[in-house]
Amino acid sequence: MNKFGLYTKFIAHEGQRDTLIEMLLEAASGMESVEGCDLYVVNIPENDSNSIWVTEIWSDPSTHQASLSLDEAKVLIQRARPLIAGIEQIKLRPQGGKGI
Amino acid sequence: MNKFGLYTKFIAHEGQRDTLIEMLLEAASGMESVEGCDLYVVNIPENDSNSIWVTEIWSDPSTHQASLSLDEAKVLIQRARPLIAGIEQIKLRPQGGKGI
Repeated sequence: MNKFGLYTKFIAHEGQRDTLIEMLLEAASGMESVEGCDLYVVNIPENDSNSIWVTEIWSDPSTHQASLSLDEAKVLIQRARPLIAGIEQIKLRPQGGKGI
Repeated sequence: MNKFGLYTKFIAHEGQRDTLIEMLLEAASGMESVEGCDLYVVNIPENDSNSIWVTEIWSDPSTHQASLSLDEAKVLIQRARPLIAGIEQIKLRPQGGKGI
């Protein structure tokens, strides 16, 4: 198994989370046609009103890397940047399980 | 959407991670027959040799809660406990995305 996983925490500026969630859901629907993207889920954490966690699973690291250079991704990052106060990432290597 | 998500970080005692991974993969295969478990993925993080992250998505909070009282879950928790130095959890509410 050569899959690649990612937890990305987006910290939104005060009052901007809902708008950022909509943008990330837009990104998620854009992923429907992206080869190698197995999972792209937008989550809100309990007890943290400014953050969003995105869960990603990719068929391998290179498909994820390639997705970052897609025009849609670049445009979305530009649009979202003003709403984002901080980003944290946990890079993962899936070992197996249900649903992948 | 009433789904429930969970990131669980297991910190293994020195030298015990591989054994703990095997147990969690066993738990994942047990989830194949568990109603409401959409995703249960065992991951190792980059740059952290003692930790494991498990990604879960459930159809709703109650199916997750019910799974904790399954005999298989209780037996596995007992077996795994001596290998575990610490546990951290991030509880999530999925808002949508690809793959769920």
